[in-house]
Amino acid sequence: MPTRKATARAHPNIALIKYWGNRDDNLRIPVNGSISINLAGLETITTVNFSKAIAEDRLMLNGEQQAGETTGRVSRHLDHIRHLAGINLPADVQSRNNFPTGTGIASSASAFAALTAAACSALDLHPAEADLSALARLGSGSACRSVPGGFTEWHVGVDHQTSHATGIAPAEHWNLVDLVTIVSREHKIIGSTEGHRLADTSPLQAARIADTPRRLDICRAAILERDFEALADIIEQDALMMHAVLLTSRPTLIYWLPATLSIIQAVQTWRSDGIPAAFTIDAGPNVHVISTTEYRNKLNTLLGEIKGVQSVLTTGIGGPAHVISEHLDN
Amino acid sequence: MPTRKATARAHPNIALIKYWGNRDDNLRIPVNGSISINLAGLETITTVNFSKAIAEDRLMLNGEQQAGETTGRVSRHLDHIRHLAGINLPADVQSRNNFPTGTGIASSASAFAALTAAACSALDLHPAEADLSALARLGSGSACRSVPGGFTEWHVGVDHQTSHATGIAPAEHWNLVDLVTIVSREHKIIGSTEGHRLADTSPLQAARIADTPRRLDICRAAILERDFEALADIIEQDALMMHAVLLTSRPTLIYWLPATLSIIQAVQTWRSDGIPAAFTIDAGPNVHVISTTEYRNKLNTLLGEIKGVQSVLTTGIGGPAHVISEHLDN
Repeated sequence: MPTRKATARAHPNIALIKYWGNRDDNLRIPVNGSISINLAGLETITTVNFSKAIAEDRLMLNGEQQAGETTGRVSRHLDHIRHLAGINLPADVQSRNNFPTGTGIASSASAFAALTAAACSALDLHPAEADLSALARLGSGSACRSVPGGFTEWHVGVDHQTSHATGIAPAEHWNLVDLVTIVSREHKIIGSTEGHRLADTSPLQAARIADTPRRLDICRAAILERDFEALADIIEQDALMMHAVLLTSRPTLIYWLPATLSIIQAVQTWRSDGIPAAFTIDAGPNVHVISTTEYRNKLNTLLGEIKGVQSVLTTGIGGPAHVISEHLDN
Repeated sequence: MPTRKATARAHPNIALIKYWGNRDDNLRIPVNGSISINLAGLETITTVNFSKAIAEDRLMLNGEQQAGETTGRVSRHLDHIRHLAGINLPADVQSRNNFPTGTGIASSASAFAALTAAACSALDLHPAEADLSALARLGSGSACRSVPGGFTEWHVGVDHQTSHATGIAPAEHWNLVDLVTIVSREHKIIGSTEGHRLADTSPLQAARIADTPRRLDICRAAILERDFEALADIIEQDALMMHAVLLTSRPTLIYWLPATLSIIQAVQTWRSDGIPAAFTIDAGPNVHVISTTEYRNKLNTLLGEIKGVQSVLTTGIGGPAHVISEHLDN
């Protein structure tokens, strides 16, 4: 019996210039471009096995068989890839994250990047990186940014093909770290997919979108020039602009907790004292403190002393989504 | 010797729809209209005595002789009124607030409203309320809203004469209370005058201004209809829109403390439990919890239990600035 099986690995990413709001909900084409870094050490490893031996798609996630909408979303995503390959076989998907869920690190990005890379490889499709990124985007918007390595930029584009991420610089370009500072493990009050739909209810969203090219230009230049001060300033303003939209949405989305503010203020103080530290915050209460490897241990200690901080997870800059084993036998 | 002396009383106010940013810094003409309530129980009482017996303007504030810029600002304000009256006499000003400074309640509004009312009366000027309001505005923008009683609206206008406040409804119209919840007595990191100048550095300020007529209309209607739910929704969104601008200004103005967020979240929970409570926050960390007299004691207790709350000051709706004694003898 022919086996069409492959395994791929991908890292989650944290946006430095945020994506918030879709122009096309179905195709997950965003209203504004974004820039992110892949997070080394954190990863999803996914094996996809297309096989006549099973009756329908199956999904095992962290060792647990999934059902319902979770499997449905994966199935619909695989349909795009099956369609490209002209093959209509059910898939057995086994996926595992080495990082906990509910910590403010979206697992959907690494999950759909790894799933897309593995499924394409298993079906002997070898899309260019930009096309693989666009495909991953159909499963989860920010997954497109986990396809290239290092520092990546998601270009809005005009359609499915052109809305994809490309690399700004590889992981080795700059020794940044992300200290993911956990203040709550509770599930989000409103998930990202629903949140994106609320973006337009804020009277400030249009202004945020209109200003995005400026922030992207500054952030991209700061990365290329390894200018930490410029990076810190623009990523903090960008995160605050997204939270400005969240705060003023209807219903209002206030994700911050008291400890979130304590960390923001500590980071500002540290930076004014000469420590390269900057915060960014996704749609949740946990704070990502961006710094450089030299300050990793010092900041880890300082963050751990802040009241309300439950734990700190330290990561570096990760590489691209890639296939780690391939068993194509037809 | 002729004496030209009068005493006036005025209340501070809290904006329900905020003023942030000036179109004309010298004339203090704002970029957007605002709505406020006067705070009963809190007051400034000011006596102005124009007299040849003194060599130059003198200012006694809460029993302490003032010098420098504080007296200078009062002198320049009195110059407008002396000019109107065609009189050029130095003034002895004695002013007293019955509320502490540095608690997030601006004393400049009640101070300049009382000063303007007393000085006009002492010089036998009897401007219409709108003109008195415009005059007070020259001393401190929000002072114009402390001139009419109760619920007042500051119309942007097109020049000095037309930028003034008028009454929406008198104090007796609706039994609201403001529980001023103090979480910090520290002085503001950046004062209001300088803060207004930074408003335009936020990429979101223009959108906030453009949306203001909508918020004013909803707030004015909610007041006239005594619709607490509608009032709560719009004043919270408005406060968050101002803080959205503050957060995204350069430099960033993060006035909130951890306890500020605790109160915001408590208020949201209480309201979903059926208690009429809504928050508004000026450019500072303290939270004004708006409710009705029936819930004053209950909320006072609940607020006092929140970690980080130092004290709660409860006020009702106050009347207009008015002259309480007049000694015109010429």
